[in-house]
Amino acid sequence: MLSANADEGMWLFSQPPAQLLREQYQFDASPAWLDHLQRASVRVGGGGSGSFVSEDGLLISNHHVGAGTLQKLSTPERNLLRDGFHARTLAAELPCRDLELNVLESIEDVAPRVNAAVAKESDPDRAFAARREVIAQIEKDSLDRTGLRSDVVTLWQGGAYHLYRFKRYTDVRLVFAPEEQIASFGGDPDNFEFPRYDLDICFFRAYENGSPARVPAFLRFSPQGAGVGELVFVSGHPGRTSRLLTVAELENLRDQALPSRLAALHRQEVLLNAWSARSQENARRARRSLVGTQNSRKATEGRLAGLLQPEFLAGKAKAEAEFKQRLTGRPEFADALAAYTAIAETTRVLAAQATRRGLIEGGQGFGGDRFRIARTLLRAGDERSKPDGQRLHEFAAAGRASLELSLFSPKPIYADLETLTLADSLTYLAGQLGAGDPLVREALAGKSPRDRAAELIKTTRVQDVAFRRQLYEGGTSAVAAANDPLIELARRVDTEARALRKVAEAQGEVREQAHAAIARARNALNGTAGYPDATGTLRLSYGLVKGYEEAGQPVPAFTTFAGLYDRAKTMGGRPPFELPPVWVKGKTRLKLPTPYNFVSTCDIIGGNSGSPVVNRAGEFVGIIFDGNLQSLPGDYYFNDRQNRAVAVHSAAILEALTRIYDARALARELTTGRLAR
Amino acid sequence: MLSANADEGMWLFSQPPAQLLREQYQFDASPAWLDHLQRASVRVGGGGSGSFVSEDGLLISNHHVGAGTLQKLSTPERNLLRDGFHARTLAAELPCRDLELNVLESIEDVAPRVNAAVAKESDPDRAFAARREVIAQIEKDSLDRTGLRSDVVTLWQGGAYHLYRFKRYTDVRLVFAPEEQIASFGGDPDNFEFPRYDLDICFFRAYENGSPARVPAFLRFSPQGAGVGELVFVSGHPGRTSRLLTVAELENLRDQALPSRLAALHRQEVLLNAWSARSQENARRARRSLVGTQNSRKATEGRLAGLLQPEFLAGKAKAEAEFKQRLTGRPEFADALAAYTAIAETTRVLAAQATRRGLIEGGQGFGGDRFRIARTLLRAGDERSKPDGQRLHEFAAAGRASLELSLFSPKPIYADLETLTLADSLTYLAGQLGAGDPLVREALAGKSPRDRAAELIKTTRVQDVAFRRQLYEGGTSAVAAANDPLIELARRVDTEARALRKVAEAQGEVREQAHAAIARARNALNGTAGYPDATGTLRLSYGLVKGYEEAGQPVPAFTTFAGLYDRAKTMGGRPPFELPPVWVKGKTRLKLPTPYNFVSTCDIIGGNSGSPVVNRAGEFVGIIFDGNLQSLPGDYYFNDRQNRAVAVHSAAILEALTRIYDARALARELTTGRLAR
Repeated sequence: MLSANADEGMWLFSQPPAQLLREQYQFDASPAWLDHLQRASVRVGGGGSGSFVSEDGLLISNHHVGAGTLQKLSTPERNLLRDGFHARTLAAELPCRDLELNVLESIEDVAPRVNAAVAKESDPDRAFAARREVIAQIEKDSLDRTGLRSDVVTLWQGGAYHLYRFKRYTDVRLVFAPEEQIASFGGDPDNFEFPRYDLDICFFRAYENGSPARVPAFLRFSPQGAGVGELVFVSGHPGRTSRLLTVAELENLRDQALPSRLAALHRQEVLLNAWSARSQENARRARRSLVGTQNSRKATEGRLAGLLQPEFLAGKAKAEAEFKQRLTGRPEFADALAAYTAIAETTRVLAAQATRRGLIEGGQGFGGDRFRIARTLLRAGDERSKPDGQRLHEFAAAGRASLELSLFSPKPIYADLETLTLADSLTYLAGQLGAGDPLVREALAGKSPRDRAAELIKTTRVQDVAFRRQLYEGGTSAVAAANDPLIELARRVDTEARALRKVAEAQGEVREQAHAAIARARNALNGTAGYPDATGTLRLSYGLVKGYEEAGQPVPAFTTFAGLYDRAKTMGGRPPFELPPVWVKGKTRLKLPTPYNFVSTCDIIGGNSGSPVVNRAGEFVGIIFDGNLQSLPGDYYFNDRQNRAVAVHSAAILEALTRIYDARALARELTTGRLAR
Repeated sequence: MLSANADEGMWLFSQPPAQLLREQYQFDASPAWLDHLQRASVRVGGGGSGSFVSEDGLLISNHHVGAGTLQKLSTPERNLLRDGFHARTLAAELPCRDLELNVLESIEDVAPRVNAAVAKESDPDRAFAARREVIAQIEKDSLDRTGLRSDVVTLWQGGAYHLYRFKRYTDVRLVFAPEEQIASFGGDPDNFEFPRYDLDICFFRAYENGSPARVPAFLRFSPQGAGVGELVFVSGHPGRTSRLLTVAELENLRDQALPSRLAALHRQEVLLNAWSARSQENARRARRSLVGTQNSRKATEGRLAGLLQPEFLAGKAKAEAEFKQRLTGRPEFADALAAYTAIAETTRVLAAQATRRGLIEGGQGFGGDRFRIARTLLRAGDERSKPDGQRLHEFAAAGRASLELSLFSPKPIYADLETLTLADSLTYLAGQLGAGDPLVREALAGKSPRDRAAELIKTTRVQDVAFRRQLYEGGTSAVAAANDPLIELARRVDTEARALRKVAEAQGEVREQAHAAIARARNALNGTAGYPDATGTLRLSYGLVKGYEEAGQPVPAFTTFAGLYDRAKTMGGRPPFELPPVWVKGKTRLKLPTPYNFVSTCDIIGGNSGSPVVNRAGEFVGIIFDGNLQSLPGDYYFNDRQNRAVAVHSAAILEALTRIYDARALARELTTGRLAR
């Protein structure tokens, strides 16, 4: 469903919009230009983006991408998240114990091997198992052969399978972070809005063998950045879009999935907000969860609002009907035509168990880090004794290193916040399923949610990393022998949790095969031009630096430092509009007209946070950190009239580093592309 | 279900716990003592309490009871809610245009007349209509005869009917309010908590014929107040308890009604919080709604937590089974035994339509003041042309004055907040029922919720009081001719709304008859001692000034001004823990050890806000403004181990008035019981 919008698309690096760029912008996206950009682009942790900006492994990403790490490195005495950090020497750079960087090395089409393995199975359960097994085998073969992290990526909802190989960096150190207050100036109220005034940046460095990594590619930093009307590109990892879903799936999102997700987010936001208000230390502990929840809530609201635009779903229904009309009566497309019915049915089946699945398998009913760890330990014991291809996906051999990095993370886990979260989610579980439900009774064990949560958090030992390591290494028998109450809770609900997941996996398999059939028909009728839905893998977007109109008023493409000080003043300097002291003091030193944040028509979505914005020369001219409100329906459709990507301008980064933070060495590394030696 | 707890009960003034008080506390609650307290007690507006404290109509209530009025009297330039108010002369007292005070004059048993009228009807619809008709007739007869506001009150869930007559005051003027910041110091985080530090008071004056009213009774103000261990009484209007519900009803509350209510509150809190954060003026406009929402959310959480204490419902189930055992085999109690089944069935029927009813008739799907007004205008046109006894209850002749006071209130209604609220509730409607639901399509008229709300709020005229008056007086034809889009929206959904309500009314009738049968059996077997569930009418509670233990730590009964300054300091003086400037400046003038807030074992619930606390001599020693967290399950049961009522101490009121606010005339009126003349 490619629209006529000029700058739409999150394109595969293996299938770039070369012709479009040539025709629209007379730009030649050469293989060398693309290859360099791909190798300088980095996936940061589980779901963020970043880029190398010096040959010595210096990485720039968003402050909000690094914030989880900053929180983990903080203590009540040293609050890096709030107060920022600056390593003036390599020795002062702070190791981040569980942060992983991945750089995409190669892309290989593995669809023939996947499809051949699945084609033999007609039963969905068996087909799913066969698919899981062949994918695990491909990933393991690749890992064994190359030593590189290897992920099979499903594209076009099952229309294609690509093997992505990544170079992994696991020794990552914190170099610089500004105060959260300037990184997220305006907080939740200004999130997804424009104009904006945020220095949402954070620097890390990749190390190898104890020294700064000599990375294969990096982006040259442009001190002057981009100007109005300039063509720019974004290279990053958009997490997920749903532009190729059928009407039945979109209606389910609109009427059930998103409203239900929103209710859970509202609940969590109120819980964390209320608890944070009780003391300053509470606020510090809950900070990242609260910010994440508010961000998800606002994004979900925007997506839902997009689906509730009746003209969108009406247009979608019309296009779908027309496409089905073209398939009708052609035997070679019979499977595609039938696929729509299959998708509607699988959507219905999944919706019918969605509440229970979200609560019991999805974790909504069992909140907090400790339960998640307890379940991982329980399942690791069982799963790791199975052949690789038969394991639950997260325990496959190819993902082992990442799983262990996360499972053994020494990040602080606060007993009070865990008790609060678990009690609340058990209350939610009881409220959704009824306190008389057998699983709820099993989970509560004759106690109230609050008493049960307090008892479990008090007596479990999973917060102890050594204990976790011991159970993980000891396997099933060690887990059973430990008789840990939280692991035993996970065990009590595991039969139903796994059963719900099994249904979801089988239905997902039906859905995937159906979408693949539609994708084949679409490619046969429309050609293979276009881009698949986002999947958290590397994509290229392009567009112009360009303002827009809102409620009849023009919104210019750029803000400036002067605007930052104005906004703080208008809002009376009250949180979240207060300026850090260095910014108050440093005002006179700054060039106030320096471009600060800017918007472009690049097509992005959550996961693009931290993506570099580059110019025709492939130079770094800014860093994506947000989209505007009008970008939120981008999950379902793109409309370049108002949808905008929001970035920090490269000139602002240099200006702030030198004049506010006195970070001259860092600024020099950016402008020279290397450490001073 | 009277427990063995010493101080339990919200007692009728017509059936006071005289014997209990004599036996436990050697106190003689004489008819004269009771009558005086009754006549000095005041119901404030829709759901608060207060008391007269001078013969010249001076009324004290809570700041949070008066806050709606303070908000209505405020403008962007003069924020009385935030900054407080002090009329130093009678002439400066500010008229409150829609605030009504009611003083209970008499109580009369009208059960025979009600029951006789209903007994003839076996069909629930007809029985409900007959009951509505006879009640309206009793109220109207009384109003015509006495000129007094006359309400028939249903007690014991239908076990008794009393006619309450009230003297009404509608010329009410604002005398004094402190800053909201000291009245609600600690805001939502400290709400329902203890220790507390709130000056939650507000003074009004009742007028008659343009002069201060000479009220029939008032409470003498005690400058020294109550001490630890002292017996005290609370006279006020507890809104609703559910201590006599059956297990089936309590389970429905636990598993459906409260979780669903909580979800709606979470949603509303997030909406108002996020909007308030966007600008200081937004925050001012949404302030009262936000505070009210947070308060309801915390109260609902506490109630739900009470129901989720398994020993409570287990005990309740045991008691119910035992009671049913006593009824079994006795033909005279056959109706009571059958009543349990009828209640379970009616609960099931009501639960099945609860979502639609809450959205469509209850207003969750159509938020904001304007829609409420639009629906009232639409229905007033239809209802007022019917015979009195056949109207929807809120349009009965006896309530006409109060309805008109509210309908023609000139309180400001903000278009932006109305649009926000309506758009959000329409989104909720679509999310709960599905955007394809016929009623939802009818309501949205082919637009998105946001576009539809914007259009409706922009084009309706119901915010104009003159327009409202014109349609109200013009009746059905004037309403139709106006063709107001918001009224027309109310019309589009009115058929289903009324149908849902009709089912609820018929089921409510079945339920009421069933509860009445149980009440008769209970009274026959256990005697008529005890108190009925709270119903928003005047009740008497009693208890001791007494601290408690929490998590093994003693919580003393009193706080002091010194504690206020400590708490502000610990919380870094950040909102909602900042002190108003007069309190910062006035600290050195205050006697810091003055008792400030205190707790007692009196059995109270929402609606008791503003109730006077009196001593054995009937003197005013404090004013209730909250309960602690442990009091929240009080909706279902009372336990004096930790359940505490929280009050402002009378000594603190005098100290603050004289030393912080320089309100000497007001202080003198309190201590002398009259205006200086």
